[in-house]
Amino acid sequence: MVTASAPGKVILFGEHAVVYGEPAIAGAIDLRIRVRAEKTAKSLKITSETKDHRYVEKAVDVVFEHLGEATGLMIDISSDLPPASGLGSSAAVSVATIAAVANLLGHDLGKNEIARLGYKVELGVQGAASPTDTYTTTHGGIQYIQPRKKGFTPIQASLPLVVGYTGIERSTKELVAGVRKLRDAYPELVSPLIKNIGMVTRQARKSLEAGEDVGDLMNINHGLLEALGVSNDALSRLVHASREAGARGAKLTGAGGGGCMIAYTPGRYRDVINAIEGCGSTAMKAAISAEGVRLE
Amino acid sequence: MVTASAPGKVILFGEHAVVYGEPAIAGAIDLRIRVRAEKTAKSLKITSETKDHRYVEKAVDVVFEHLGEATGLMIDISSDLPPASGLGSSAAVSVATIAAVANLLGHDLGKNEIARLGYKVELGVQGAASPTDTYTTTHGGIQYIQPRKKGFTPIQASLPLVVGYTGIERSTKELVAGVRKLRDAYPELVSPLIKNIGMVTRQARKSLEAGEDVGDLMNINHGLLEALGVSNDALSRLVHASREAGARGAKLTGAGGGGCMIAYTPGRYRDVINAIEGCGSTAMKAAISAEGVRLE
Repeated sequence: MVTASAPGKVILFGEHAVVYGEPAIAGAIDLRIRVRAEKTAKSLKITSETKDHRYVEKAVDVVFEHLGEATGLMIDISSDLPPASGLGSSAAVSVATIAAVANLLGHDLGKNEIARLGYKVELGVQGAASPTDTYTTTHGGIQYIQPRKKGFTPIQASLPLVVGYTGIERSTKELVAGVRKLRDAYPELVSPLIKNIGMVTRQARKSLEAGEDVGDLMNINHGLLEALGVSNDALSRLVHASREAGARGAKLTGAGGGGCMIAYTPGRYRDVINAIEGCGSTAMKAAISAEGVRLE
Repeated sequence: MVTASAPGKVILFGEHAVVYGEPAIAGAIDLRIRVRAEKTAKSLKITSETKDHRYVEKAVDVVFEHLGEATGLMIDISSDLPPASGLGSSAAVSVATIAAVANLLGHDLGKNEIARLGYKVELGVQGAASPTDTYTTTHGGIQYIQPRKKGFTPIQASLPLVVGYTGIERSTKELVAGVRKLRDAYPELVSPLIKNIGMVTRQARKSLEAGEDVGDLMNINHGLLEALGVSNDALSRLVHASREAGARGAKLTGAGGGGCMIAYTPGRYRDVINAIEGCGSTAMKAAISAEGVRLE
């Protein structure tokens, strides 16, 4: 029996702008998905709190194919992450499954190999995917993403965060399409706005590397996302409630339209959690996780 | 006895950016202040719902000095505008007082003269002032403001609006200083953001003149103001509640940090008023007023 775990992720800066070639910054968070794999004589049996087993099934296929081996499996999944919340649970479960099954079969895949196979799982299930989630959950830490170079660069920094979850599921595809529609309607206004998000992200990298406060930069980034039309009432309430409770900065994270927001809360996480819960939403303390996928 | 009235105003586009030389658009709204002036043997006596009579007293001084005449006066003021809400009540009461008192003394001042004297009143009371409020309340309609040319150009357009008032008083001075501080901390991020507001305002002028929908432009402008840090929980709630109730666009208006927001509500003003009142705030239907100061 082998147990592997992998962390969830948040986008710290640059969501949506990354679609247009601007950089983004993602961070692994210490809310993890654990995958326990055991050999059985029978075929695949999965137990988890969710009914959507597509990523686990695809991950088993992908790792069997990669290794040229197969076995009967019993897989049990437990998670700190709300599903479909934009915190990268599908990438984390894919990557943790690959690591657990490979190890169970006596193989120690390198991290780049695991990330590559994880990306293949997301591509297989979704048809289209970004490598950001699978790369970040595999390697952990904070990653600076340059889409035009197809490259990831780790940023050494710690960041005390609170994640607030609106409970609202949303379609990333529709939100990305909405931004494109706005950009097509007003290219001369929206293109500089997207470039401005890229500038904020570059500055955030510098500030993080220098150990400086990134609260104002998160707030600016949130406003620019509001301008792109991807915030909504629920996200905006949590963002403002967090700031009024003492967060240094707060922004929606990921696609917007629901899902999650993050608050940067040096020394004030309890007040901020209370403020978010006071809005009827779920709040989770979430530090950056230096560790990516690991065997337990 | 003479009664003069003058309209309140909202900033439709460009607040804060106008401080840095970008254009702005202001609109007179059909919520008015009425000033009734009557000659008496005694000195000045003012009755109104508010206790702050500084603008009225200064306006009487300024108009007496301008005309080289004086008289005992009884002045009664009634207003559709909440005081200190950022809807230009001080400019409206100054301008209406000047028109009423001049007329009572048998003089018919031209509008440019009234606007100039009104600006003098605001300068005298506040120490510093922008001519926007007094110009707009005097001339009415929608005014395109070019601070670098010190010029106003009327825009012919109608605009069904709802004004939501948070009930929160705020200091314009502090909010303007906050933007300056952010700009000083991150000039290379905040300067393009301010320029972007200017671009939105120029586009809004074109769209208004063409009779096109300016909802998206109001939403973009609001997001950019969020990015400048001048929105807050109360404003943001009213903005999002209005949009979810069917407003085509919504933004804070004026300095932010409290005060008012506006929603662009073609055909949906009742739903939007209900949504704002549902947040515990005051909502007022407010079409653009083509008429500025007038004798009743």
